[in-house]
Amino acid sequence: MTKNTRRIQRGELALTRAAIIDASIALLDSSGESGLTFRALAAVLATGAGALYFHVASREDLVNASCDAIVARAMAATMTFASPPQRLRAIGLALFDAIDAHPWVGAELARAPGTMPTVRILEGIGQQVQALDLAEEALWAATSALFSYIVGVAGQNAANARIGRERGLDRSTFLDALATQWSQLDANAFPFARSVATQLRGHDDRADFVTGIDLILDGIATRCAR
Amino acid sequence: MTKNTRRIQRGELALTRAAIIDASIALLDSSGESGLTFRALAAVLATGAGALYFHVASREDLVNASCDAIVARAMAATMTFASPPQRLRAIGLALFDAIDAHPWVGAELARAPGTMPTVRILEGIGQQVQALDLAEEALWAATSALFSYIVGVAGQNAANARIGRERGLDRSTFLDALATQWSQLDANAFPFARSVATQLRGHDDRADFVTGIDLILDGIATRCAR
Repeated sequence: MTKNTRRIQRGELALTRAAIIDASIALLDSSGESGLTFRALAAVLATGAGALYFHVASREDLVNASCDAIVARAMAATMTFASPPQRLRAIGLALFDAIDAHPWVGAELARAPGTMPTVRILEGIGQQVQALDLAEEALWAATSALFSYIVGVAGQNAANARIGRERGLDRSTFLDALATQWSQLDANAFPFARSVATQLRGHDDRADFVTGIDLILDGIATRCAR
Repeated sequence: MTKNTRRIQRGELALTRAAIIDASIALLDSSGESGLTFRALAAVLATGAGALYFHVASREDLVNASCDAIVARAMAATMTFASPPQRLRAIGLALFDAIDAHPWVGAELARAPGTMPTVRILEGIGQQVQALDLAEEALWAATSALFSYIVGVAGQNAANARIGRERGLDRSTFLDALATQWSQLDANAFPFARSVATQLRGHDDRADFVTGIDLILDGIATRCAR
């Protein structure tokens, strides 16, 4: 085989960083972080590990770039919402759904404070908060509150789902057991938990998540110039 | 040695579940989760592993009980605040400080959704939200938003501090490097991050955290009957 014919082998011709990242996302989704190896990736892409290293510096770089691709897509999907509060709600939901669908994304976001892709999320939120007519000095804290709420709560939601899967519990069995526990707590020490035990059974984490964003937005609105 | 004299040996006489939990907290603080073993604990308490098992069912039980003790103390310390918003802010700060001082607490809270000690936190928050004159049907969502924000953001803050320690970075060096990175981002794609790069250097995570609580409380206030 001469060098020239080798060049047109399947895999190498098509090999781009974007294709590698797509394959990496699929592997992370199906096999978790431990399932992403250059060897498995090379097999999926019908190429060699050397060819991968031409496009990707390290496994760490690859997980980060995969996470960034998912975040960038989620943020881009919110562009159709015109008003800043609607857009902020949409950003929150898009990230909630993305982190829920790709559980490894939450862990990666927690690992990279202040760099990509967290700064991409902060930027998207900050641009919308800037359009809310807040005083200049209140911008950072309002953006930070929304960012921390969205990333923190979406990450915890995905972690809860993972705990449920690891214990082999479906959501309604898990909530049922919890609601029963809460209803049996000491009446003097836990009146609130007992009173909401029934609500716990049917509650919707995604709806609760959005209510939190709305409460922060309402709080921000009380501080806006108009 | 007869059974009677054996009874008054040092360690066994004083051995209570509370003493074991205190020693466990000290070990978790100094050596992390991997440092907490029944062997190390028995050495500290000058007793045997068998005596420990009389009071504690398992290592898992011990970490959970240690976490619960810290949460219970943090919640108890907020009793002096009379008004519900002040008390809620105090609960948030007490948990923020406790999770910051005992980094393993954040991980343990994330591991036990809906059971002790998370239900203890939810109860403390819920009782105060109940005193805010919200409509009955809004109680759960408001409590859930505050709970998720407080536990999620305090946990992320402690995780960030751990990342910094692992990389051997002090906070100001880390923020300095980040601020420089942000100020060099593409001006068209990242106008917000560039504009707040300087603020990033001097920002106070604890103050930002409280602002988030205040925004949620202000949002709740707009939905209260009076």
